[in-house]
Amino acid sequence: MSPPRVYGMSSSGNCYKVRLLLEQLQLPYQWVELDVRTGATRQPEYLRKNPNGRVPMLEYEPGRYLVESDAILVYLAEGSAFWPQHRLGRAQALQWMFFEQYSHEPYIAVARFICTALPASHARRSELPRLHERGYQALAVMEQHLSHSRFFVGDAYSIADIALYAYTHAAADGGFDLQSLPAVRAWIARVQQQPLFLPMPPVQ
Amino acid sequence: MSPPRVYGMSSSGNCYKVRLLLEQLQLPYQWVELDVRTGATRQPEYLRKNPNGRVPMLEYEPGRYLVESDAILVYLAEGSAFWPQHRLGRAQALQWMFFEQYSHEPYIAVARFICTALPASHARRSELPRLHERGYQALAVMEQHLSHSRFFVGDAYSIADIALYAYTHAAADGGFDLQSLPAVRAWIARVQQQPLFLPMPPVQ
Repeated sequence: MSPPRVYGMSSSGNCYKVRLLLEQLQLPYQWVELDVRTGATRQPEYLRKNPNGRVPMLEYEPGRYLVESDAILVYLAEGSAFWPQHRLGRAQALQWMFFEQYSHEPYIAVARFICTALPASHARRSELPRLHERGYQALAVMEQHLSHSRFFVGDAYSIADIALYAYTHAAADGGFDLQSLPAVRAWIARVQQQPLFLPMPPVQ
Repeated sequence: MSPPRVYGMSSSGNCYKVRLLLEQLQLPYQWVELDVRTGATRQPEYLRKNPNGRVPMLEYEPGRYLVESDAILVYLAEGSAFWPQHRLGRAQALQWMFFEQYSHEPYIAVARFICTALPASHARRSELPRLHERGYQALAVMEQHLSHSRFFVGDAYSIADIALYAYTHAAADGGFDLQSLPAVRAWIARVQQQPLFLPMPPVQ
């Protein structure tokens, strides 16, 4: 059987989540690099595979695709130590992953995109104050939880941590300052100390 | 053991998802009605339970809380016919639930909020063209999938259908027209024909 194939952009936090988990699971995979900024995910051939036109996309068997970074994480992690064994733990992991996609990524990842991928004169810079306000609200929710918990689901590193680590550790790229969030910073360090940890490549 | 308690606003699609599933599972529950529009979820007492200040919130045992509508659906549905039995089916259900929260709800639910909860002269009306553009993109992705599938995960009604039904069937409230989306309309009718189906209350 050929190893699964991941279509992604290396500097994207959503794509990095999948790569980090695959490395930590020590699963073989092929990485297909796509540059979203030049429209690679808007080509008809790609849209036939993923009508929503986003990365990452997992080709789990030839010609069969799964999308949405956090759904891919669950698919890959089931049965491993990265996916909680008990029903409540699984629900708590999903709670934090839905929080990440709804209340965190749309602000922290989008601010990073505007600051790193668009020219300094771009009109979308005007979105930054609102993105920072909402992003800091999400970081405050994380800070509160992490002030009494080592990881997002109790004491064990899980895919909820991978999902939230991706854009949180790179929040400075979008103009966020984590100085006043000591629990978040300590958690970032704990994630980086996990076995087989792999850093996220910088934006090219 | 006391039945679980749901804190929610009846006319919210995210809250309705949880109620519809509880009814279809025939589980006892208590419903605590909160009016988000008058700040009920921004009170210190509520924020102590859910620092992110949103509904729905499930009190699964006294003093223990779970948030994020789609995570609550998974928690409640595990072990039932509404949650796929196989790993790939579970991942596909989650794929559609993350799609719902990232690419669908932020446009279709927000347009509904602006059109039904704010005065016609409100400045946020200017967001509607962009919300409609993105919302129709999400509906087109659904139309394409449903043109060759009865439900979101194959032939079986699941919590992925509940998650997407909530705001899709009420899209007209936000100014969307489903006329040119026959597969979406046929799927809405199929959802409404499910045993123990309960309609969503209108916005008061």
